[in-house]
Amino acid sequence: MMDATLETLVEKVRACQKACNMCFDACLKEDHMMAECIRSDRECADMCGIVLDFSQRESKLFPDLVAVCARACGMCADECEKHDHDHCQECAKACRACEEACNAYVAAHN
Amino acid sequence: MMDATLETLVEKVRACQKACNMCFDACLKEDHMMAECIRSDRECADMCGIVLDFSQRESKLFPDLVAVCARACGMCADECEKHDHDHCQECAKACRACEEACNAYVAAHN
Amino acid sequence: MMDATLETLVEKVRACQKACNMCFDACLKEDHMMAECIRSDRECADMCGIVLDFSQRESKLFPDLVAVCARACGMCADECEKHDHDHCQECAKACRACEEACNAYVAAHN
Amino acid sequence: MMDATLETLVEKVRACQKACNMCFDACLKEDHMMAECIRSDRECADMCGIVLDFSQRESKLFPDLVAVCARACGMCADECEKHDHDHCQECAKACRACEEACNAYVAAHN
Repeated sequence: MMDATLETLVEKVRACQKACNMCFDACLKEDHMMAECIRSDRECADMCGIVLDFSQRESKLFPDLVAVCARACGMCADECEKHDHDHCQECAKACRACEEACNAYVAAHN
Repeated sequence: MMDATLETLVEKVRACQKACNMCFDACLKEDHMMAECIRSDRECADMCGIVLDFSQRESKLFPDLVAVCARACGMCADECEKHDHDHCQECAKACRACEEACNAYVAAHN
Repeated sequence: MMDATLETLVEKVRACQKACNMCFDACLKEDHMMAECIRSDRECADMCGIVLDFSQRESKLFPDLVAVCARACGMCADECEKHDHDHCQECAKACRACEEACNAYVAAHN
Repeated sequence: MMDATLETLVEKVRACQKACNMCFDACLKEDHMMAECIRSDRECADMCGIVLDFSQRESKLFPDLVAVCARACGMCADECEKHDHDHCQECAKACRACEEACNAYVAAHN
């Protein structure tokens, strides 16, 4: 049931959701305002959550959602890469890995 | 803040989410198995839920999610239209209206 | 199907979800860090979202979720009331009204 | 950051969400109507989803949500245990393990 791109995808989406939620909390404690990072962490975590849920169902919408998730991850990675905080750098990596897994899944299922 | 297509969209998405959730419950009580209807009701309700949430945030992903929602609504309407039950016919109408509002929003924001 | 406490509840939850999401975005633009407000806005909006979804299903868990939502609204109102920004004051009002509607629903269904 | 009960909890919740979503799909394909199983699979999967999301944030509401999740898991296990299908038996096991992990977490954090 689980092909290789889906297995990788699920693993990367999980790591990405967690990194985004943790970066969200950590950004709220920084001295300087991290508005765009906070916003994109939340969006990306929400997209990961719905992708994980739909990955467990036989949904025809799944590839469409994965494509939106790729965009959310890309935007969150772009933002996190601007900041030196460890949590931002880790989140950027998780987002970039998730973006690649999403794109690989979409490419393999078109 | 609310332009006309967004206002219509939100109204239609709300009605669609509710109709899908009610059709879901009602389908579970039918004598004959309504598998595809139950599945598409759930998916469409879930997509409406995330669209409503993102409609209240300043999200760059919103048009992408609205486009996926349009597809979910279209598939759910196609399925519900096959069945004579009142709840299916009402759900089909709510889904079709939501699909149109989604498509109008996407067209107006490209 | 809709009794009076449920009807009021749904209306207040909708208004509260929207106020929380808007206060979230607005807080991100303030000069000073509004960390606790941002965090509680997100939590409260998420709880409202799941309550709205479950309000449309025949769920035995619904009163339990409404009780958690009451707590989320109370905590978000406590936080928003500390800040003079219009969006915080409006959010506090929406949260307090939602908290009351949640408590009224729980009291009427025990 | 992750204590032992939380680590176990997250693992069990993930397995439970997946089992519920898979049982949901499988039930839709059974000859006989599996209405209550389908309904409780959906509810339990939804509760697991929000618990996973909140487990990654510093949320004061987390124990309350875990308590509701325990109830969702218990009800879903009760229902699935009635059916001989492999997917129902597996889902019942995942739900029961998740219920226990939820209760252990709540007991350890009161």
